[in-house]
Order: sequence, then structure tokens, then C-alpha cells
Amino acid sequence: MIRVAIIGSGNVAQHLIAAFLQSTDVQVVQVFARNKKALEPFSGLVAMTDNLKDLTEADLYLIAVSDDAIGPLSMQLPFEGRLVAHTSGGAAIDQIASKNAAAVFYPLQTFSKNKPVDFSTIPICLETYAVDDYPLLEKVARSISGHIYKIDSKQRQALHVAAVFANNFTNHLYKIGNDICAENQIPFDILKPLIAETAQKIMTLSPAEAQTGPARRNDVSTIGRHLEFLSDENQKNIYTILTQSIQNDQKL
Amino acid sequence: MIRVAIIGSGNVAQHLIAAFLQSTDVQVVQVFARNKKALEPFSGLVAMTDNLKDLTEADLYLIAVSDDAIGPLSMQLPFEGRLVAHTSGGAAIDQIASKNAAAVFYPLQTFSKNKPVDFSTIPICLETYAVDDYPLLEKVARSISGHIYKIDSKQRQALHVAAVFANNFTNHLYKIGNDICAENQIPFDILKPLIAETAQKIMTLSPAEAQTGPARRNDVSTIGRHLEFLSDENQKNIYTILTQSIQNDQKL
Repeated sequence: MIRVAIIGSGNVAQHLIAAFLQSTDVQVVQVFARNKKALEPFSGLVAMTDNLKDLTEADLYLIAVSDDAIGPLSMQLPFEGRLVAHTSGGAAIDQIASKNAAAVFYPLQTFSKNKPVDFSTIPICLETYAVDDYPLLEKVARSISGHIYKIDSKQRQALHVAAVFANNFTNHLYKIGNDICAENQIPFDILKPLIAETAQKIMTLSPAEAQTGPARRNDVSTIGRHLEFLSDENQKNIYTILTQSIQNDQKL
Repeated sequence: MIRVAIIGSGNVAQHLIAAFLQSTDVQVVQVFARNKKALEPFSGLVAMTDNLKDLTEADLYLIAVSDDAIGPLSMQLPFEGRLVAHTSGGAAIDQIASKNAAAVFYPLQTFSKNKPVDFSTIPICLETYAVDDYPLLEKVARSISGHIYKIDSKQRQALHVAAVFANNFTNHLYKIGNDICAENQIPFDILKPLIAETAQKIMTLSPAEAQTGPARRNDVSTIGRHLEFLSDENQKNIYTILTQSIQNDQKL
């Protein structure tokens, strides 16, 4: 049984605890949270502490806190020479203070409170500072997911940026679609099957192959009518720039 | 049995034919296509013609051709006073020449060749010039879908623009994510569960509630690192504008 201690009580920490509780190879020996209240769903299921000095011995410490807190927290850990991984896509491996063996255990998914996720389908991106530490990290990851990738810090930076486009910015485009519907007394529900199909399509086609629409077919009159229709300067600007970007791809 | 004739042989026409072939209330009495070869999958299943003058009598004619061809085609129809609907989100109802009763029958979905769709979940947006024609159009729509909406031409224009954001532009953001992965030797597959979950989330949350990421939490240092990472000027530009747009929403 691999012993894992989890440091943090946010969305990622909670989803990791829930996933490891189902695993037969990994035991969550302790969870550290400054605010133990956040861990109420797990009371009775895992040992908890709000004092770093009381951290118990474990084979792996997973730090699931905000990016800015990783460095200071890893420095305060009351031990040395143990394996410590953060769970962030946005922080480099060297954010883990060098007195411990540094690693990254980054599950690439958007986690919402109270929305259970099927961890077995979530890609987990792994990196260890020392080659020798990789097998243990991989074993821990495999105990909850079937999709494990070895990703170094530079690749993870790229992946984090790519995820901002594919997740955060995509959601913002949904938001603009929602705003346009609301202004015209159209239920946003009409767009939902289209949104689902758009995401579904690229499971089997490349995004380049899946591209459709007025920009793709260079339908200048429709583009003109759309720009005339949009009164919000910000929406007009986004429409123009994304249309040009799609058209540039056609020229390559 | 309601008799429907379909004019066109593209993606929308083919998906409509396939859907009506399953319907017990609607019969496809004829399909017109300049290029009958495109309709090979339906040979033996529906009557076909490549001559407009041979169009048979029907209760409803559905014109599923490119936006620019709707007007000229509707003028060439060799009859008057019958119900004629186009299937476009981007064209106004008056594109149907006035010698016939005009209508719109717009299924809001992105159709790919060779990819079957479950029409029962696709929203169909209806409009008729004459109030009296609406019930028949609605009956035809209900025979293939459970999601029928009465949408006038101005609303349909709004919906078409909203769909460009939610579908075409979203797919382009997937494309940028894919490009960034490819440049860094990362399999695009890693992003697919994230893309699926992003689309899934707004089935139950509003896009405003579902928004996450560095722009949403005003994480200036991460945004700075991402912009530094991006070397492509176009990607940088899109990142900046969408980040500002998300930040502006927070200020409201």
C-alpha cells in the first residue's frame, strides 16, 4: 500500500481524496488543511490535521494549493528528503523547495465543487526531478487513472496555455453566445446541442477538419451581416479577430 | 401523411431525408438535386429528379441549398401558392420568392458528411410568413424532433451569430490548442477530456458560473507568463483580447 498525504482542501484536493478512497493500491494517510471545515465531506474517512508540524510519514506528499502558495508551503514542510509533488499545470517543478525530492502530479481537468468526476478518464501529467522517483509517482497515478503522460515543465507550460484556449476561452465564447441569446429573448437551451456536437466532433476529427462556418468558407456577405448585427464593440472585435484567424489558416 | 419535397443534396438535405425516412407522419415524395450522384445513399428509397420542372405536388417544399442560391432557386419554382421553406439560419424569410407562401425550417446543428445525427435532439427553429401555415410546419418538425422553437427572422439572425461564437469560433480555439500541443510534442488527446467537460458543464451551469482560469481570477502573473510563452503574434492577440473580455465581465 502506497501512503499518500494530501496538503490542501480545495477542489483538486477534494477530488483527489475522493479518487484515492476508491483505490486499492493507495492509502490517504492524512490530509492537511488550514480550514478543516472544508473537508467535512471526508470526516471519519481520512485522518486530518491543521498543523503542518503534525504531518505524518508518507511515501508521497501531494500539494494541492493555489500556485502562489506552493513555494512557501513546500518550504515550511517539517521534513527533508521525501517525495513532494504539486498538482498545478501553471507552476514549474522547482517551486517545490529543494530540501525534498520534487515532482509534479497534474490532473488536466476542470474541477467544480459538488460535481463528481470520473477520475479514470482524466489525463494525469507526471514529472519527477529525479528519474528514480518516477515509478512510484506513476503507480500512484495509475491507481486512479488510465491516462498517464510524462510531461516536462516546458511541455506542461504549453499544455496549460493550450488548456486556457480549449477550456477558459471556449467557455467565454459560450458566455457571449448566451448574452446574444438573452438580448434577443432566445432561450440559451437552443444552443446546447450545437455546443455538445462541436465538442464531440473533435473526438474523431482534427479541429482543422471540423472547422465550418462563414469564415471557413470565406462567406464575405454573411460575415458583413454578422458584424452589422453586433452592436457590442467587444463582441465585434472578437468576431473580427477570430474570423481573420480562421481565414489565415485557410491561406497556409 | 404530410407530403414533403426536398430541394438540395448537401449535408442538411441528406440528414433531413434520413430523418424523414424514419417518420411515420411525413413522406418524402421527391428530392430535387442538380447532381443526383450525391443522393446515391438514398437510391431506391426516394423519388429523385434533376429537373425543377418535374417537381411533384407536395404540402411543403424544403429548400436546403447554400444561402446565395435560395433566392434564385425559389424564383425558378414552377408553381405558385404553395408552402416553401428554406433551412438556413443566415437567410431572412423574404429570400423565398413571394409567389409562394414563405417559411423557414432551420435545424440548429452542425452537420458533417457520413456522421449520423440523432435528429430527435436537434432544435428546429420555425417561422412562417402567414400565421395559418405554422401548424403544418410545426407538425413536420415534430415528426423528427422534440425541440421546436418559434423564432422570427431577427431572432434567427441573432441565433446564427451566437452559433458562430459557440460553434465555429470554439472549434478554432480547439485548433489553436491543437497547434500549441503539436509545437511542443504533446498529444492533443490530453486535451480531449477537458474539452468534453467544458461543454458538459454548461448543460447544468450558466457559462458565467462555469467560467474559471487565470483571467477569471485575475491571476496577473500567470497571464504574464502565458503571454511570454506564446511566440505567435496572432495567438498572443487572441489571448489578450479574450482575457480582457473575461476580466471586463468581472467588473460588471
